[in-house]
Amino acid sequence: MAEYKAPVKDMNFVLEHIADMPGLSQLPGFEDASEDMVSAILEEAGKVANGVLSPLNVVGDQTGVKLVGKDVPTPEGFKEAYQAFSEGGWGSLQFDPEFGGQGLPYSLSIPVMEMWQSANMSWGLCPLLSQGAVEAIDASASAELKQTYLPRMISGEWTGTMNLTEPSAGSDLSVVRSKAVPQGDHYLVSGQKIFITWGEHDMADNIVHLVLARLPDAEPGVRGISLFLVPKFLVNADGSLGERNDCAAVSLEHKLGIHASPTCVMSFGDNGGAVGYLIGEPGKGLACMFKMMNNARLAVGLQGVAISERAYQHALEYAGERTQGKAVGYAEAGPIIRHADIRRMLLTMKALTEAGRAITYDACASLDRAHRLEDKQQARLQSARAALLTPIVKGWCTEFSMEVTSLGVQIHGGMGFIEETGAAQFYRDARILPIYEGTNSIQALDLVGRKTMFDSGEALNALIEEMRQTISATSGSAFAVEGGRLQDAVVALEQSRDQLLASGDNPQFAATVAYNFLMLAGTVVGAWQLLRQALQAETELEAEGADQLFLTSKQMTARFYISQILPRYLGYAVAVSDGAEPVISVSDEQLQAAFC
Amino acid sequence: MAEYKAPVKDMNFVLEHIADMPGLSQLPGFEDASEDMVSAILEEAGKVANGVLSPLNVVGDQTGVKLVGKDVPTPEGFKEAYQAFSEGGWGSLQFDPEFGGQGLPYSLSIPVMEMWQSANMSWGLCPLLSQGAVEAIDASASAELKQTYLPRMISGEWTGTMNLTEPSAGSDLSVVRSKAVPQGDHYLVSGQKIFITWGEHDMADNIVHLVLARLPDAEPGVRGISLFLVPKFLVNADGSLGERNDCAAVSLEHKLGIHASPTCVMSFGDNGGAVGYLIGEPGKGLACMFKMMNNARLAVGLQGVAISERAYQHALEYAGERTQGKAVGYAEAGPIIRHADIRRMLLTMKALTEAGRAITYDACASLDRAHRLEDKQQARLQSARAALLTPIVKGWCTEFSMEVTSLGVQIHGGMGFIEETGAAQFYRDARILPIYEGTNSIQALDLVGRKTMFDSGEALNALIEEMRQTISATSGSAFAVEGGRLQDAVVALEQSRDQLLASGDNPQFAATVAYNFLMLAGTVVGAWQLLRQALQAETELEAEGADQLFLTSKQMTARFYISQILPRYLGYAVAVSDGAEPVISVSDEQLQAAFC
Repeated sequence: MAEYKAPVKDMNFVLEHIADMPGLSQLPGFEDASEDMVSAILEEAGKVANGVLSPLNVVGDQTGVKLVGKDVPTPEGFKEAYQAFSEGGWGSLQFDPEFGGQGLPYSLSIPVMEMWQSANMSWGLCPLLSQGAVEAIDASASAELKQTYLPRMISGEWTGTMNLTEPSAGSDLSVVRSKAVPQGDHYLVSGQKIFITWGEHDMADNIVHLVLARLPDAEPGVRGISLFLVPKFLVNADGSLGERNDCAAVSLEHKLGIHASPTCVMSFGDNGGAVGYLIGEPGKGLACMFKMMNNARLAVGLQGVAISERAYQHALEYAGERTQGKAVGYAEAGPIIRHADIRRMLLTMKALTEAGRAITYDACASLDRAHRLEDKQQARLQSARAALLTPIVKGWCTEFSMEVTSLGVQIHGGMGFIEETGAAQFYRDARILPIYEGTNSIQALDLVGRKTMFDSGEALNALIEEMRQTISATSGSAFAVEGGRLQDAVVALEQSRDQLLASGDNPQFAATVAYNFLMLAGTVVGAWQLLRQALQAETELEAEGADQLFLTSKQMTARFYISQILPRYLGYAVAVSDGAEPVISVSDEQLQAAFC
Repeated sequence: MAEYKAPVKDMNFVLEHIADMPGLSQLPGFEDASEDMVSAILEEAGKVANGVLSPLNVVGDQTGVKLVGKDVPTPEGFKEAYQAFSEGGWGSLQFDPEFGGQGLPYSLSIPVMEMWQSANMSWGLCPLLSQGAVEAIDASASAELKQTYLPRMISGEWTGTMNLTEPSAGSDLSVVRSKAVPQGDHYLVSGQKIFITWGEHDMADNIVHLVLARLPDAEPGVRGISLFLVPKFLVNADGSLGERNDCAAVSLEHKLGIHASPTCVMSFGDNGGAVGYLIGEPGKGLACMFKMMNNARLAVGLQGVAISERAYQHALEYAGERTQGKAVGYAEAGPIIRHADIRRMLLTMKALTEAGRAITYDACASLDRAHRLEDKQQARLQSARAALLTPIVKGWCTEFSMEVTSLGVQIHGGMGFIEETGAAQFYRDARILPIYEGTNSIQALDLVGRKTMFDSGEALNALIEEMRQTISATSGSAFAVEGGRLQDAVVALEQSRDQLLASGDNPQFAATVAYNFLMLAGTVVGAWQLLRQALQAETELEAEGADQLFLTSKQMTARFYISQILPRYLGYAVAVSDGAEPVISVSDEQLQAAFC
């Protein structure tokens, strides 16, 4: 079976020309992010992903995880891999040097994170969640909590979790019922949380749970929710581990995919209350958590890219090896990669993956600029740009990850349905991505509401202006036709935007068209990202010693996308323009009229 | 968990107005297919599907099947369910009364088959394959073989299988290597076959394998392949079962879905040769098998409809029960069915399913007419119509079944990813449908090649003419706007057809655009089928005592489809019109340039 090979060339190219790493390295604190350093980091991370984590992907899926007493032993090799990750400092790239981080751009940590997710998504969820917890603590916790917890979390010695969901509080966190009662310098936390990723395991010495709960006098709804830090083992004043806290995993879910990632039901306070510490102000728990969730949404979109890349490589290898039938233009039977429809599927996988990678890195680079630019107005614009792109990254990349992993199965033919082939695992694993960290319905509502209508389309207009600049640049290039196609698509996006902005008095409109608007935006922005790269490749190809193969492959991929994938925007645009009526005019009774 | 409820109303409506069962019942031999008889059959079959088979779906998935020695014990309840099926005569509806069949239209057996597949697709594969075997034997075997085997197979006492695939012979059967050596009045068959559905089990007394193999002097390629009947137990002259034949399942596949359907590696002739009987002429095996495969392709498309219906009902029930968040326009939290995006997903599921159902039943009714019409020219046209619709039914309905079952998971949110919820099983089970009975690449090539280009578009033109008649009928109706939309889509389909027909000197064109042409055709024909029904509903609604709820639901579904799903044709049409170049201009090396 194909082991993962980190697509370092594409990552470097996108970091340099889309994320503008050379520009980022000019910002205060990012001086270390030189071209050489970036390349070296990607090369070294690739070795760990390819050689250590990828070979554990199948064994993890097949072994899965079980609760043994209070413990969750991880599949063979997982613990050692985590140790290698931790000792290599791979969890510390983007964090504050004050707490042991390396102070590198967040957007540089992203390709590295992508590698873990491609190599082994179940395993990769542990550092993904831990890094989110670090961000939340770093952003909102007291100096003392930071000092106690961040160095050990950033080093990877301890891992972190997000405890939001309860049986009745999924997408709607306003109905969280867990409680926290003040007790001296801490709180006693009690309640049950579900869907807690890596809530219990044996890869690290301690687990730091971030838990949403209500203080006794809290008002109902979201403004009564506070955030608490609840360690699995209490930490003594000297930093050593003390007694076990009153919290534990009480069961694990039996899931469609990511079998090696323990999804826990966590119980807090069964024996009087788990010791917890308030993070941020009382009643501001959701705001503190959202800092973490925004980055986590980008990371889940990145998982969509990552699992797509893995499925693509897997299918590409099979297509080159499996012999079946004579393809058009060939005299003899040969590998199925020769068949036009197999090529169509492979190119669809490659094009979507590379478009998604570019959008994701681009969004993360905007976050870096938002944090580091000294010009406040520029920083604000970059922040709004990242905020706009976040639901597109999460929503669109995870939607296409289902398509791409499904094509991966299809390319394998009958073998694709056999678990041992490995293609089915990617299909199963990917299915969680449109659901967790805010379902794609939530992402779509976020995009049309907070990110488009609430700012009167300002951030979207700025992005469209960027796209127009690229379109202008295609004039006179070998991509003028593609520029014209993107131009038409941008006009459609503008029309949909105008409909949204004009729909203020009809809130059903935005709610109903949100998904199609998200898909429209993702499809168009994806085309733009590939076209930018094709133009860059055109420039670079003029230089002596240019990497012909790679650069022309970027151009071919852009052409394919704009020809074969971009046209989907037409359907999304019509669906938006028809609005709410076809959806909401149907009664509940009509929905079941055929069989009741 | 929601048990299946056979959508008898929709089935009756489609049978009456799309399949034209009243017209079919005028044809010689079909006199029994009266309206009352049809309704009674659907009602009774529904009871078995809902009450007997549906409750076994989850247990089958969870238990799965294993090889125990040479045997494959089926999950608890499967055997009894099969007995109920057999005793009810449910396997005999469409077969020749001479061999114990009921002589009813094939298209009447289709909704009944749909029910088995909705209720329990793993189980349903056993009768599905058996009926295919009956068709092949009935069409091509000697009178003696028919007399010996058909009555017991039609009664359901014995089941049947298709043994085509070998490790190197999947989509390309020309390289089949299994052998058959003449020996007196029979042949000795040897070789290994893979992916043999229900190749071994304990639900019936005997299993009749239809096996592709080569005679000793056979020429290479497809013209050297013959078809053999190889029973698990030999049959004595008096019809009793004799000794066990030299064939057995030697292993079972570990699959993504349909866990309760044994997918066997079958070994023939390990001890000298399995006794087999030639069906049809030597060297005509593929032609004999194709008679069976054509109907099997329709049946697999039907499975796409069936699993979509089941996923829809499951999601609809959950959406009505699960409370989460305040929907737009509501003051309080309520069931998620109130949320616009949930409704969009539910309607997408419903609309695709009902469009697919209508296309499938329609194609099967054409087969009935092709067989029974006395006017040879009319019969030929109906045969060509069914042949054209077959790859659309198989390809398009199975493609959308992945989308529909995925939406079913999505509507469940985090619970959808938990196996116990049941939504994930439909998603896993559906994934085989685009692969088996000819991958959808094969279906697409069949549609553009044999079914469109080879007859110069004649059958397609006739279908387009039918669509134009419906469009004309919308003028002055409440569906004039929808008629106009369909008109535009039909024009796009015609343009794509013209491009195909003009591409004769460029065979890469058809091979490359085949998939998009298939999806274009399916999307447009699906819209037409729903629009026909909406117009019929408009007429019926004028009558006193009309079923308002059901008829208006048909109209709403058509409106939704034409507004929100039909526009996808725009993207498919552009992808076709761009042709081969974007796909085939990319080299194998460019495909791996990013990571090698």
